[in-house]
Amino acid sequence: MEDCIFCKIVDGEIPCFTIYEDERVLAFADINPINTGHTLIIPKSHAENIWEIGEDDLTAVHRASRRLAGAMQRALQPDGIAMLQLNGRAVNQLVMHYHLHLIPRKADDPALSMTEWELVPGDMKVIEETARNIADAC
Amino acid sequence: MEDCIFCKIVDGEIPCFTIYEDERVLAFADINPINTGHTLIIPKSHAENIWEIGEDDLTAVHRASRRLAGAMQRALQPDGIAMLQLNGRAVNQLVMHYHLHLIPRKADDPALSMTEWELVPGDMKVIEETARNIADAC
Repeated sequence: MEDCIFCKIVDGEIPCFTIYEDERVLAFADINPINTGHTLIIPKSHAENIWEIGEDDLTAVHRASRRLAGAMQRALQPDGIAMLQLNGRAVNQLVMHYHLHLIPRKADDPALSMTEWELVPGDMKVIEETARNIADAC
Repeated sequence: MEDCIFCKIVDGEIPCFTIYEDERVLAFADINPINTGHTLIIPKSHAENIWEIGEDDLTAVHRASRRLAGAMQRALQPDGIAMLQLNGRAVNQLVMHYHLHLIPRKADDPALSMTEWELVPGDMKVIEETARNIADAC
């Protein structure tokens, strides 16, 4: 879809650190990570939210999430992973292309907001290296 | 699984306000709702988290979430729905049986925490009536 930043990532017009990819989904590093390893999984085909996404794409996203969760466990040994998927600007959906957040967490991490977070650019070298480590563990 | 409160709900040992059910999943009202309509979807078969849940159960949970999101839209007209699934006590998973939160939201609702929330019992009559309204719209 024109003017959709995630469609541009899928099309290769905007670069990303790819972590996992199959025919239906793309998983890549969030460059404004809440935590090291913060990953987004999106359907390649544009759908705005849970009401628009097709059943096969939804299934593919969540199968990939299970695979990624395993890879994160092996690569990062977090104490837990929060999975978050927001539908509607009212709940802080910022990019209007369905996306699932995978946020690895340590036990002593500070509290995490669902609806308010500051977009703070991460260290690109750390993001790239972490993405590669998770990808290698997939 | 013995001593699992969600398994007891599945088995009917503990009552719940059922919203949707099929052979693999059960959706019911959270009795400590963050917002009106707060719903949990669980696999009937015990699995602690994303690392344990089988692929077919995971698919069934998320297919149900799509159906429930549609029903919530029709029954409650929220401005958005947050979907949250926590894995590990470090990320505030309180019941160690995989569950997906569906939290309908209005635009002027206060900020929502992923990792810290107070368990405040809701008004049982409102919960029951809301559950019935969503169930009827499924």
